[in-house]
Formats: sequence, structure tokens, C-alpha cells
Amino acid sequence: MKAARILEYSKPLVLDDVPVPEVQPDEVMVQVRACGMCRSDVQLVDGYFRSYGDIPMPITPGHEITGVVRQLGELVSKSSTIQEGDHVVVAPGWGDGTCRHCLVGNTHICPNVRWPGFGLYGGFAEFIPVPARYVIKVDQRLKFEELAPLTDAGVTPYRGLKKLRDAGALAADRVLGIFGIGGLGGYAVQYAKLLGGGATVVAFARNAEKLAVATEYGADHVINVMDKSQADVVRELKQATGQGELDAIIDCAGAPQMMQLAFSLLSISGHYVDVGLVGDRIDIPLFPRVSREQTFHGSFWGNNLDLSEIMALAAQGKIRHTIQTIEFDQINEHIDRLRQGEIVGRAVIKF
Amino acid sequence: MKAARILEYSKPLVLDDVPVPEVQPDEVMVQVRACGMCRSDVQLVDGYFRSYGDIPMPITPGHEITGVVRQLGELVSKSSTIQEGDHVVVAPGWGDGTCRHCLVGNTHICPNVRWPGFGLYGGFAEFIPVPARYVIKVDQRLKFEELAPLTDAGVTPYRGLKKLRDAGALAADRVLGIFGIGGLGGYAVQYAKLLGGGATVVAFARNAEKLAVATEYGADHVINVMDKSQADVVRELKQATGQGELDAIIDCAGAPQMMQLAFSLLSISGHYVDVGLVGDRIDIPLFPRVSREQTFHGSFWGNNLDLSEIMALAAQGKIRHTIQTIEFDQINEHIDRLRQGEIVGRAVIKF
Amino acid sequence: MKAARILEYSKPLVLDDVPVPEVQPDEVMVQVRACGMCRSDVQLVDGYFRSYGDIPMPITPGHEITGVVRQLGELVSKSSTIQEGDHVVVAPGWGDGTCRHCLVGNTHICPNVRWPGFGLYGGFAEFIPVPARYVIKVDQRLKFEELAPLTDAGVTPYRGLKKLRDAGALAADRVLGIFGIGGLGGYAVQYAKLLGGGATVVAFARNAEKLAVATEYGADHVINVMDKSQADVVRELKQATGQGELDAIIDCAGAPQMMQLAFSLLSISGHYVDVGLVGDRIDIPLFPRVSREQTFHGSFWGNNLDLSEIMALAAQGKIRHTIQTIEFDQINEHIDRLRQGEIVGRAVIKF
Amino acid sequence: MKAARILEYSKPLVLDDVPVPEVQPDEVMVQVRACGMCRSDVQLVDGYFRSYGDIPMPITPGHEITGVVRQLGELVSKSSTIQEGDHVVVAPGWGDGTCRHCLVGNTHICPNVRWPGFGLYGGFAEFIPVPARYVIKVDQRLKFEELAPLTDAGVTPYRGLKKLRDAGALAADRVLGIFGIGGLGGYAVQYAKLLGGGATVVAFARNAEKLAVATEYGADHVINVMDKSQADVVRELKQATGQGELDAIIDCAGAPQMMQLAFSLLSISGHYVDVGLVGDRIDIPLFPRVSREQTFHGSFWGNNLDLSEIMALAAQGKIRHTIQTIEFDQINEHIDRLRQGEIVGRAVIKF
Repeated sequence: MKAARILEYSKPLVLDDVPVPEVQPDEVMVQVRACGMCRSDVQLVDGYFRSYGDIPMPITPGHEITGVVRQLGELVSKSSTIQEGDHVVVAPGWGDGTCRHCLVGNTHICPNVRWPGFGLYGGFAEFIPVPARYVIKVDQRLKFEELAPLTDAGVTPYRGLKKLRDAGALAADRVLGIFGIGGLGGYAVQYAKLLGGGATVVAFARNAEKLAVATEYGADHVINVMDKSQADVVRELKQATGQGELDAIIDCAGAPQMMQLAFSLLSISGHYVDVGLVGDRIDIPLFPRVSREQTFHGSFWGNNLDLSEIMALAAQGKIRHTIQTIEFDQINEHIDRLRQGEIVGRAVIKF
Repeated sequence: MKAARILEYSKPLVLDDVPVPEVQPDEVMVQVRACGMCRSDVQLVDGYFRSYGDIPMPITPGHEITGVVRQLGELVSKSSTIQEGDHVVVAPGWGDGTCRHCLVGNTHICPNVRWPGFGLYGGFAEFIPVPARYVIKVDQRLKFEELAPLTDAGVTPYRGLKKLRDAGALAADRVLGIFGIGGLGGYAVQYAKLLGGGATVVAFARNAEKLAVATEYGADHVINVMDKSQADVVRELKQATGQGELDAIIDCAGAPQMMQLAFSLLSISGHYVDVGLVGDRIDIPLFPRVSREQTFHGSFWGNNLDLSEIMALAAQGKIRHTIQTIEFDQINEHIDRLRQGEIVGRAVIKF
Repeated sequence: MKAARILEYSKPLVLDDVPVPEVQPDEVMVQVRACGMCRSDVQLVDGYFRSYGDIPMPITPGHEITGVVRQLGELVSKSSTIQEGDHVVVAPGWGDGTCRHCLVGNTHICPNVRWPGFGLYGGFAEFIPVPARYVIKVDQRLKFEELAPLTDAGVTPYRGLKKLRDAGALAADRVLGIFGIGGLGGYAVQYAKLLGGGATVVAFARNAEKLAVATEYGADHVINVMDKSQADVVRELKQATGQGELDAIIDCAGAPQMMQLAFSLLSISGHYVDVGLVGDRIDIPLFPRVSREQTFHGSFWGNNLDLSEIMALAAQGKIRHTIQTIEFDQINEHIDRLRQGEIVGRAVIKF
Repeated sequence: MKAARILEYSKPLVLDDVPVPEVQPDEVMVQVRACGMCRSDVQLVDGYFRSYGDIPMPITPGHEITGVVRQLGELVSKSSTIQEGDHVVVAPGWGDGTCRHCLVGNTHICPNVRWPGFGLYGGFAEFIPVPARYVIKVDQRLKFEELAPLTDAGVTPYRGLKKLRDAGALAADRVLGIFGIGGLGGYAVQYAKLLGGGATVVAFARNAEKLAVATEYGADHVINVMDKSQADVVRELKQATGQGELDAIIDCAGAPQMMQLAFSLLSISGHYVDVGLVGDRIDIPLFPRVSREQTFHGSFWGNNLDLSEIMALAAQGKIRHTIQTIEFDQINEHIDRLRQGEIVGRAVIKF
């Protein structure tokens, strides 16, 4: 089968023909029909994660995977409703099933977690074996190129926004800021309208083309922060919404300076959820966090339940996409474009 | 001033000319511009509440009050932003400010609560004195006849739906049932779309005209339960939504038989919130409640915060109304029509 | 192996010698060392559950199971830490692993749940095969006869009390009522002290000997409700605690009249959790539930996580027991005694 | 009356005789009987808060205030139960009563908040006028010198621990770390046992004498971090508790390096609450916060409800104290000792 793999960090992926892997007894074989390209694929290529864990080579990136079930492991329970020919998405975060986090369904933060696309097997290849309980059956009318990014770009801000909502930070008299309108932020804007209970949604980014996507998806206001001071941004926010503060923030970027800007805008008892990993440092004053009783939530990817809810939204036609489909042999070129921040929406490899 | 008052239970209201009351130092005088008519006004007239408390005569009904501030008590703090000429709604549930419930803002369930419209002063009169902290300033572009019902019919199902949402019972892969599409249910349907995160909304009632209102306000399906067996309803529900159970229920009626039907449809770990008081009995099997881990929430009216959020929704134009405005001297006639369940939407007295 | 089985409802169990069952690939064989006797065993014998589901005969009762792992199914993952010779408790509620409830760990309310002791295999027998993920390894110093009842009598009120605590109903300035001091109530009193944050704990029952157990386990006050009017009970409660109402209630009995008494004592915004199934009817007034914003929670048994926490408490020596160990051939006699309500604490069969 | 006041930053307080202030209509006059000395008094003297707000001179420090009601403002409602001669504590954080935070009882984070001891009037004086709704009546048997510190040192970690508990971070199978065992930490240890549901409690500090207090108040383990590497601390933690991570942390210090140590110990899905303000910077890696889904909560002082619960615990005799009472004219000497971190427990001025 065709596969694009990392043999060495900071080099282009090697596109090659490799043997199809074997399916284990509790797994199903998924023929990949589409796989999204994520900023963390670039970070993986560039070695960002090396300080947090050692992954043996070769690595097949690609974790936004959808396709068709082609083979069932012999032990896949007869009670399972999965069958050959089913269209599925692959839920990320394969846990050990026994830890405290797995016991409440958060298999994606299991200490023994395995992630597709961060080891030997990934979605930048034609086939991948997947534990049966991590495939979710989907409506056959949905398009593969739209399903793929939902498994990360689509589910990650959804989980983050649920944390804001469940913390009580969203309501009709509140203002929600969305920072970073890349692959994730476009979805975040849409969920903000679905989960926000009428909250005013303001998108912040440094790129007018991306902000236009936010507007198209329902942002009430957009603020281009490029070359603006904090005071400028406060003024613009106040003019747009009547208040110079944000009651809730979802940060889809995680860039250090933008985090400092965002925290400086956060209101009393405000909630800040970060799902972005562009940078790797939080460096902010302590006193306002405490005296204003603010909360910071790290939110990571999503679990089976989150993804099931996303699939329900998709089946209802409630999610719109900004997708560029690319060919398998364009992968390296698009990794470079992603690194430069040039991709608007999501690039998806279609097999 | 004109006032319509109860002098004796189970008799028509007496329409009379009475002296304008005095405003206390911490109160403001509100000139009533519109007052909604509520099913509980009928119950008050009919003596429903007598077993729960003794109210001295005369009683001026009317608790859905909006109007214009005409006078400020001498002690209304200078820091207060309320001024003469302001358009306001009157928040229900005037607490003592010191009990455990008041301390978290639930003044409407204070053991020493006072309610407008359930004592000497109410909205079926031209003027009413109100403690300053229980008036909420509103946008002058909003119509009085639309503001009035928001203070009860509008805020009550909102609080109930927030309880369902905060319990985690609403999501894109869930089905929400709304029982009773009278004055409250029409609002409930709209909030279900705003707070439901994509949940499928099914309205249940016994009156086709009322169900048509539900459809107009966005219900995904409606089921007329008149003369149908439980099995019929399950079948119709399953056909409409793919499942024969409801993951969440808001009951805007509280009629004993409909409650039994609704509970029989409630799913595992389902949540049921009741805001309706048509009947006065819960009589259901215990075992399914326990073995299926269901939760029943009583929800009552709303507090200042709930009403502030509703006002934000109203100012955004996100709430639609089914209103019949009536004249002061039509009150008794419309009390009869309410008693018969003939009013579609809300009747509002306009002064 | 020895087994005590139901061949016909409303008859004594038949004590017999039957073949040891086979272990399935994903199961482990547990040699039962102790099994608690539960009121629901009596109800099972008496046919209480027949209206809710049909169980084929023979039925081996016994769901409070602890013992020693004697054999591992061939597919029990090598990653599993379970080994032959391990002491384990058996978690109740074996779910299908794929439904919405299983996905958050509530396998015990899975629509396809299987329960040990409510079908062919149960703990009133020397061996039982158990899916590997439903055994929890325990400290070998703990006594089997004390472990057994923790899997139901011990975990059930724990889950119920967590619901009260998580609802915000427990704090130092609140009064918690515990109704029914049988097998579950004695544990409930202890958890109330562990989870209550200083809440005053009042035990209610009709049996002085059982109330003495409550006092021994730390109840601040006990009230014997036998032959007392509601007004009597209010007076006694007020004298004991300074208030005539209960801010939170855990009902370990579920007897209809006691439920009516308990609800009549429930405070504004009070929470009531029921874990008992003595009766099968809730029949109470609706108005106070709504106007006082009370919440009723059904709570059923417990999940793996609840039981793991209980095992941590047990290992810390924080749980005390009122146990009567009995022999296998005394089972029928003790089923009769349970039916009469004569057992103080828990009867445990020791093999 | 005697008063100790700041006339200039970074200078000793000026002890003087000043006029007794007037009581406003909605206030009561409290004769201060004891006032705690807090690290933030030192910070106030040293100008730490100047960058966050400008306070006009003279400033009377002292915000841990208890005493006797000596006079009622003319407008203090007749319905109020406060009377002359009552013993009271003064709740901190006097809000405007109308903002979104005040509406849910969080008057202490009102944007228009006034704090005793951070302006003209404070507890380092013989009398202070207090809005009637911010005094809480207490049992006359309680000692003033023990009541005073409960209004800040006592209530602040209580609110912080409630945030950990309400986030689900405390249970019998979890390990809770308490960082900093100064005035607040000694109380934190006690609450950890009351609210922790059986969690293992580990105290961390750099001072053996303070750690001895933690042990006395029930800490299961103590770890002196002075001159130890992160790896040393992990090893010691693992030896003590069986795990090298902390599932929950309350930081009563807020010192930058200790925060970095503490965050490095935080488990997957761990919760970190900070109530300490020794430093003014959070500077930590972002990736682990996100990929491990950790949450940081700022928690500030407490509200009327928190303080009422603390008073209930105090009345039950459930709080122990490490108090040094001092005379009014020893204030400046003890401010110096506090600045040096030499005070074990709390210094309280007794009038």
C-alpha cells in the first residue's frame, strides 16, 4: 500500500509502497478514504513532541482518519454492529480501558494511550488496523473529505467549548472570544453558535482571509489583531460589543503573545480554554487570575462521546467545512504550506 | 387608579378605582404598561394555592409586569442606574436578602419571599411599588406587550431548560420532549433550539393549533397525544426520531396523566424538569426511576439572573411571541378562556 | 460445585450440586469466598422484578461477590494486571461497552446490562465466570466477609451520597436525613461523615436496634419514626438540630409511606436520592416539589469507579461493618429473616 | 479611637488616636475585638497592589475582623436579626449588589467591590462601620481571637478546596497536595480531611516547624522541599503515597518556583487551585496542561455563604487554630516578622 512516512525528523516525508499491516483479533481494518492534515503533523515532522516522548521510526503521520471497514478481527464481538463495508471515522486516543480516565470514557488521556498517526500506523497510508471500539459508524451520505477533519479539527474545539459551557461561562449576556481561525477555529465559531445560548461571538486572528471564514460561519464580530496594541483591541472590542472584556475564551492557537493578549482581556470569573499548541509556554501575571477568580482549562482532542455528538451534528447538516482536498503525492508541499500558516480551513488527502 | 382585584375566591375579579399605593424608601413606583395573564392567575382566583398559604383579601393578581419608572424611593441608592422614565420589567420573587437561597441569587425561593400579584399589589392595576433591586432596565425599543410575558411564561421554561442543559441531558444525539404548548411551551421550544446543542426537539400536546405554534417556533416534530395509547405515542416517536424514548423532558403542564405518559417515555439516565402546575400529584412507579437512574427537577419561575439573560435574548431579537393583547375590562372574560385552555400563546393586558 | 438456585418463584432456593461453568475467553473464573445476602435477593425470589423483565430459570442469586481468581480466559489481555490467586471483588453491571452510558463508565445502566446473580450464574455458588474488566483487585489483608457486601450494600449508598454532594446539598450548615438503617443505611451513615463536609447527620428508622447501629457509626441524631405523626417528627427534628426540615435525604428503604414522610420534611432546594426498592410507588404532591425547587435522584448500585473508591476507603480502614456470617445451608432460613426485616446489618455467606 | 494606619508606602504603620467614623443608614458599627494579621497586609504596606489600583491615603489595614455590634444604622431593616450586642464576623468583599457576580452571591469579586482594610477603614482600629448584610452573627461562646482569622486565612483555603471538590478532584483514591503551610495552609489541611472524601493529604513546605503543624492537623504525609530537586520530591512522594503525582493541588503560597514544582507534579486531569499571592507570575510549559487536560483555578477569599459554612464548622468545634495573640502596639514588629515568614500560624491583634 502507499504510505507517507517520517524516517528522520525535519526532513520531507518519504512516500513509499509498504506491506499492508495485519489486523489483530480485536481490531478492524480500515481502508483510508480521506485523512486530514493537521498542524500537529507539521510539529511531529519538526520534532516538537520529542521532549515529551520518544517515538521509534518510521512514523506514519495522519490522525484524522475516515474510510471503509474491510476486515473484522476474529474476536470482534458478534454483538458489535460494525460490519464490512461500513463507513467509519476513527476515534482518537486508544486507551488501556482500565485506568481511571478510561473508566469515565476519557481514553484519549489514558497514561497508556496510543494515537493513530503518532507511531507505526497512521492515516497517511491506504490501510490502518483500528481497535473495534474506536471506530464510529457514520451515515453513508456524508462525504469522506468532510468527515476526516471532524476527528480532530472538528472535535477538539467542540470539547473545548463544552468545557466553557459546562463551566457556566456562556449565555446570552456574555461575550465569547475565539482566538486563532485556522483549521480548528472555523469549527469553533459554528459550535459557539450551537452551544453558546445566545452569547456574542468575536473572532480574533491576524489574517483577514481567515477572519472572513469566521464571519461566514456566524461570528458576530471579528477583530484583526495584527499590529494592534492591547488598548486598541480593547477599544475595538468595546465598540463592537459594548464591553472591553471577554467572559469566555477559546484559544485555538496557543501562541504565547496572543495568550498574553487574551488573558489581559479576560473578565472577572472568566474561563479560558486552550486547545492550541503553536507555542509551549504560559507566562502571565498571577494576581489577576486569583483576584478575578479566573479559570484555565487545558482541553485535548476528544473522546468517543464527543465524536459521536459531532457525527450527530454532521448527520443533521449542522456543520459547514472549509476544505481543500489534495492528492497523496502533494503531501510534502502542503506540510510546508501548513508550516507557513497559509492554509485557510483544512487540507484533506483524498485517496 | 384602575385595579382588578379578588375579593372572594371563585368569583369574577372586581374592577375598581383604588388609591395609588405609596412607594417605600427602597422602592420605585412602576406605572404598569402591560401585564401578562397566567394560568396561575386562574388558579389564584380558584383558590388552588389556599392549602399552601393564606393570602389576605383583597388580592390584586398579575405578576408579569412591565412598565415605566415614575418615582424613586428616597433611599434608592445614588449608585443605582435606575432613573425616572426607564422602561423596566419586574423580576419576580422578592426575597429577604439574607437567607441561604438569597445569598446565591435565588430570591424567588426565599422562605420569606413576596411575589407581586399574590397579595395587595399586582399588575392588574395601573401602578405598583417595587423594591429597586427587582426592576431590570430594558431597551426602550422593545414592546411592552412582548416584555410582560417574559417575566414568567418566558423566564420559567428558560430556567427549566437550563437545568436540563446543566445536567448534561441535551446534546446533538439526544431527543428532548416538551409537554404542554400553552403560554410557556411556545417559549420552551425556542430555548430548546438555543440551549439544546443540536438536540432533536419533539413537542407533545392535545391541541393541534398549539402544536402548530411549536412547529412554527422550530420543533423538529410534534405529536398530538389526544386519544392515543402509550404504545401509539412510542411508535410515533420512534418513527419521527429513530428512538422510542426521550432523553430529556420539560413539562410545561404538570397534568397527572400526561406526567405518567412522559415518565414512561423517559430514557435511562433521563432528566425530567417540571415547571407546570395544572395538577398537584406525582404518582408514578419507583423502580424505573431508580434502576434507570432518572432525575426529577422541580423548577420554579426564575431569578434576576435568568431574567437578565432573557432580556439579552430579547434585545438580540431571538425570542418570538404569540400574544393577544386585551383591554383592562376584558380581564374576566379572558380568565374564563384561560380556564378552558382556549388561549393560544399569551393574553396580555395593555394599559 | 454447590449452588443455591431459584427453580420456581416464591419457593425456597434449591441447594444442589451442579457443574462448574466454563470461562469465556475474555473472562476470569472467580472462586467465590463470600457473598452477601441482599433484600433484592428476597425480591427476586418473590418475583418482584417479573413485571420489569423475564429471567429464564434456573436463577442463581447472589450479586455481592468476592473471591479468588482461579483461571484466566485465553484472551484476557496480557496488559491486564489480574493474575491467578488475586483477591478480587466483582463489580456489578456488566455493560456492552458501546452504549452512551458505557462510554462514560456507567456500565451498570447499559440497556444491554448483565448482572451477576440475576441469571444463570450468581454468588450463591462456589464458582462464577466474570468478564475480566469487572473484577477489581483488592488488598489481600481485607476480609472476604467484609468485602462482599461492599459490592452492593456498600457501594450503593456511596453513589447516592455522591449525587447529593455533587448537587451541592451537603455542607456544615445543612442537615442530612438517612432513611432506613438496614444493610445499606449503616454504610450511608459512615459515608455521610466522610463526604458531608460537616453536615449534621440524622438517621430515621422504625427499629431501635438498627438506630443504635447508626449512632455507633457516627449519626449525630437518630429519630425512631414508629407510631409518630409527621408533626411529632418535625418537632423531634427541630429539637435535635434547630430546624424542622432536611436539606438532603438519602432513602435506603423506598417504602411508600416513609417516602411521603421524608418528602414532607424536605427543605427548599432540597435534594432527595433514593436507593431503596422496598416499595414501588412514588405518590406525592407536585406543588411543593416545584415551588420549592426540589430534586429527586434515582441512584442505582454503582460502577467500577465507585467501587474502586470504596476499595480505597476499605484499604485505609475507614469502613466499619455490621456482619453476620452464615453457612451455605442456612441460606433459605436467612432469606426468610431478611423478608421479615430481622437482619441487623448484613448477612454474608462464607464459603 | 486607636488606629494603625499607612500614611506612606514602605514605612511602618502610624499608630494614632483618630475620630470614630460615622455609621451610614444601612450599616452597623462594629467594635473590633480581634483582627488577624495577613501576608497581604505586608504586601499592602509594601505597595504590592499599587499596579492594580490606586488607594488614597490614609489606609487602615486589617481585614480579618470580628467584634461586637454597638450601633445600628437607622435603615437597617427591622426584619434583620442583627442586634446591638451581637457577636459578629465581618464578611469580606462588599459588592454593589447589582452586578452579575453579586447576583449569585460573589460580592467579593464585584467590579465595584469595597474591602475592609484596603481603604479608609479597617480592622487595625477600634471601630469600623460595616454594611449590615456583611456581618454574620456568631455563637457567643467562640473566642474572638479564633474568629478573626477565619474571615480570610480560614475562609480562603475553604473556598479553594470547595473548587477542587466540586471539580471532582477529591476522592479516596486520590492524592491531594497542599503547598505552603503558613496562615492559610494549616486550615487547608483540616478542610482537606473534612471535604476530601478520604483523599490522601500531603503537605509541602520549606519549614519543618510549619510542617509539624500540618501533621498535627491531620496531614497524612509531609514533604520538606527545601534544597530538593524535582526528582527527589517525586521519589519521596511516591514512597509516601504509592504515586509520584498529585491529583489535586491547593497552593496557599503562589511563589513562582514552587508553582513550577507543583505543576510538574500534577497528574492527568489534575486540578490546581491557587489562593496564594507571594509572587506574581505563572510561567510554565503549555503542552502538558493541554495534553493532560489540567485545570487551573484562581480562588479569591470567600463570600458570605462560604463564611457562613465556616462559622457552622467553628460552632461544631471542627476547626483548630494556631494563633499568637498580640497587642495593638506590637503591630509594626509583627508586620516585619510576617514579611520574614517567621510567623507560624496566625498573629491576631486583640483589643
